[in-house]
Amino acid sequence: MGSNCPSETAGKPIKCKAAVGRKPGEPLVIEEIEVDFPKAWEVRIKILCTSLCHTDFTFWKMTSGPVSLFPRIFGHEAVGAVESVGEHVKEVSQGDLVVPFFQRNCEECRDCKSNKGNACSIFPIQFYGGMPRDGTSRFRGSSGEALHHFLSVSSFSEYTVVDVTHVVKITQEVPVDKACLLSCGVTTGVGACWKVSQVEEGSTVAIFGLGAVGLAVAEGARLCGASKIIGVDLNPDKFEIGKMFGVTDFVNPASCVEKSVCEVCLSLPPRFLFHFLFSFSLSFFGLCRLLVFNDQVIREMTDGGADYCFECIGLASLMQEAFNSSRPAWGKTVILGVEMQGLQLLVNPYELLEGRTVAGSLFGGAKAKSDIPMLAQKYLNRELCLDGFISHEVCFEDINKAFDLLHQGKSLRCIIWMDK
Amino acid sequence: MGSNCPSETAGKPIKCKAAVGRKPGEPLVIEEIEVDFPKAWEVRIKILCTSLCHTDFTFWKMTSGPVSLFPRIFGHEAVGAVESVGEHVKEVSQGDLVVPFFQRNCEECRDCKSNKGNACSIFPIQFYGGMPRDGTSRFRGSSGEALHHFLSVSSFSEYTVVDVTHVVKITQEVPVDKACLLSCGVTTGVGACWKVSQVEEGSTVAIFGLGAVGLAVAEGARLCGASKIIGVDLNPDKFEIGKMFGVTDFVNPASCVEKSVCEVCLSLPPRFLFHFLFSFSLSFFGLCRLLVFNDQVIREMTDGGADYCFECIGLASLMQEAFNSSRPAWGKTVILGVEMQGLQLLVNPYELLEGRTVAGSLFGGAKAKSDIPMLAQKYLNRELCLDGFISHEVCFEDINKAFDLLHQGKSLRCIIWMDK
Ligand SMILES: NC(=O)c1ccc[n+]([C@@H]2O[C@H](COP(=O)([O-])OP(=O)(O)OC[C@H]3O[C@@H](n4cnc5c(N)ncnc54)[C@H](O)[C@@H]3O)[C@@H](O)[C@H]2O)c1
Ligand SMILES: NC(=O)c1ccc[n+]([C@@H]2O[C@H](COP(=O)([O-])OP(=O)(O)OC[C@H]3O[C@@H](n4cnc5c(N)ncnc54)[C@H](O)[C@@H]3O)[C@@H](O)[C@H]2O)c1
Ligand SMILES: [Zn+2]
Ligand SMILES: [Zn+2]
Ligand SMILES: [Zn+2]
Ligand SMILES: [Zn+2]
Repeated sequence: MGSNCPSETAGKPIKCKAAVGRKPGEPLVIEEIEVDFPKAWEVRIKILCTSLCHTDFTFWKMTSGPVSLFPRIFGHEAVGAVESVGEHVKEVSQGDLVVPFFQRNCEECRDCKSNKGNACSIFPIQFYGGMPRDGTSRFRGSSGEALHHFLSVSSFSEYTVVDVTHVVKITQEVPVDKACLLSCGVTTGVGACWKVSQVEEGSTVAIFGLGAVGLAVAEGARLCGASKIIGVDLNPDKFEIGKMFGVTDFVNPASCVEKSVCEVCLSLPPRFLFHFLFSFSLSFFGLCRLLVFNDQVIREMTDGGADYCFECIGLASLMQEAFNSSRPAWGKTVILGVEMQGLQLLVNPYELLEGRTVAGSLFGGAKAKSDIPMLAQKYLNRELCLDGFISHEVCFEDINKAFDLLHQGKSLRCIIWMDK
Repeated sequence: MGSNCPSETAGKPIKCKAAVGRKPGEPLVIEEIEVDFPKAWEVRIKILCTSLCHTDFTFWKMTSGPVSLFPRIFGHEAVGAVESVGEHVKEVSQGDLVVPFFQRNCEECRDCKSNKGNACSIFPIQFYGGMPRDGTSRFRGSSGEALHHFLSVSSFSEYTVVDVTHVVKITQEVPVDKACLLSCGVTTGVGACWKVSQVEEGSTVAIFGLGAVGLAVAEGARLCGASKIIGVDLNPDKFEIGKMFGVTDFVNPASCVEKSVCEVCLSLPPRFLFHFLFSFSLSFFGLCRLLVFNDQVIREMTDGGADYCFECIGLASLMQEAFNSSRPAWGKTVILGVEMQGLQLLVNPYELLEGRTVAGSLFGGAKAKSDIPMLAQKYLNRELCLDGFISHEVCFEDINKAFDLLHQGKSLRCIIWMDK
């Protein structure tokens, strides 16, 4: 488990390498940092591998606002080994193979004990750049400055410290790179089908965005017995990949824009009037054609609208399109994407009245402490396919390549190996 | 059953009195009109009593747009006796006591057969001013002009014609004025609790708007065992009435505006930034104070947000407030109000991600043909309270008084008796 023998390092700070985000959108810098020993209820983890999720990318790009914090250690999909634990930690101990995760799960608060939802309300205040319990940092840069944490995980470092409510032990039988996927993206997509929407056999499903999250939705939908799984993506390469995950039909918004917005809008029944007026005003920004057309295409493909729509991109306009693609009476739209432009979702209340629902979910409604080990077991039982999500692997020094690959739409998940 | 003996009138047009909406927002005019005999799959009904729902009011006020149709016969909450039936109609026959309803229920299409939702997709095209099957009118005014139908019911007339998919027989045991309530508003509110949201015992519920629909939600919530039922209304008179329906707490937005929007907004965590910016821009229109404050009040009253929020007013700003009053993790907002200003609902996608849901519903998710008789039976069993909803009664000639009373916030349901 690396050069630092646990018994030697416990209780002391560790010097190690981390990829530090110094400025928004600029390549991460591999630096030597100091990682504090874990305080009470905390666990210090030696990261074995980590991967890049689009949420890292979104926050790394963010130039302003209260959640744009720099310098920062990003990364929230990972697997590691416990190096040492702080006072009161009984759940995991030195040497355990663990998955850290961003969606807190204390298993004791009212929310954790409820069988509805997957929030955790144990800590009253939400800190964005520090440990979840007290908001302070466990990372110091070369000149002694505190480095911000990210989503209570910060896995782009050889060592990190997480709260005990953000980590779960898993069996050593699971290959670490597969377990890494369960830390965020794949669990989110699969959970959105299983837990948030309970897709029934024979359902029609439309997935907006075929990244790892969207494809994990497809995997979940396939396992639930969906009869039609429509993938919507601007990148046609994702269609070939999608087929391997059970996507049955594809819509490329870019090839749908031949009909103009006016043609489409004016053919709609009168209740679309407000939608039309709204689209019309958006047309000045060149957004409307995309906005209006897909939902018509999907409504036609599904005889009135998909039973379940999932937004896995992070754009308010696509969230709206997903909603508009859902069928009346029981169409459910699940928002998984993290909106990247700070925009609000506009919903036509008449379309809601027809019986539609919009829900959102972090981590696909999964309760990390029980569901990550459960999904790992399903992988071992060959019930859940994970292998296809790993498209690339790089060593830690090349972490910025993972950013390039995701940005270019070439990767699903790129595993970043710390020791190779 | 009135002066026209069924056997004499069947197969012929009937001349009778109707309250015709000639111009938006102007008093209805009692006129002699001609009501066609029922065509195939149609039922002609002699209305016994009808009542005014806010949806009549909203459409009667509407001055433009594709659903603003005049001259028109409004009214969609009613009880009547079958006068005659057209070809193929077997389900009801002359003399039956029936409740007409706006939310179609053929019991044979894919939607009606599904146990999800309450839409009916038997007719492919939605007509707004005529019979649901072919779009034509059965009403002619004094100069022979066609009068528009309303919501496939048009009960502000001594006789009306409805499609067989818009009418259900009920037992003669139920007093007609109580049955009338089940035709729209009360079923909508009760159904929203029972069918759309399945409010659990011990839940907290916030109801925006304490008209008949909102109070029926309270009645449903009380029957479901909700522990706290918060009523939000601008009209303090509704608070005394609300107590009789089990409302436990009240919030009057008008008395909440002492804190300014800036104070409230700036005390919110950073994820409210977009909400803040949005509210800020709204403040130019004087809307923001109302918009922001209630949800804070309700979040405080419910330790983080209500489990279920119901919008029973019909204003996008209040829909948003209801959403913002719902708790993270599993808070569900149900939109029942028919938006009166053509505005869209703005939803903060981050608040959705926290696990919230927004759903809408027509007729509270109830399937009219089975649920109206079921609720009538519950009333007879004294399980469902209906009496309190009737606040006023007028004779047909005084129908415009019912509009005044609703507009002034004085009435819940005003029963309009055709023959008294
Ligand atoms: N809710 C959660 O808990 C959770 C967890 C993980 C990720 N996320 C979010 O889910 C989203 C997807 O994450 P990912 O890692 O799969 O990202 P990704 O970059 O791998 O996939 C996004 C996909 O969307 C496609 N796309 C982009 N713009 C599009 C457009 N305008 N129209 C159609 N397709 C478009 C891209 O081609 C790509 O295939 C991100 O917003 C991420 O932040 C949320
Ligand atoms: N979804 C459906 O199937 C369905 C069925 C029936 C009625 N509706 C709609 O439900 C809504 C309520 O109908 P109703 O008949 O009970 O109406 P109502 O007029 O009796 O009640 C509305 C209540 O809202 C209150 N109110 C108005 N503006 C407010 C504000 N800004 N803040 C707080 N309270 C405010 C009024 O004081 C009143 O008590 C209407 O929009 C109606 O069109 C929908
Ligand atoms: Zn992620
Ligand atoms: Zn918890
Ligand atoms: Zn109504
Ligand atoms: Zn039907």
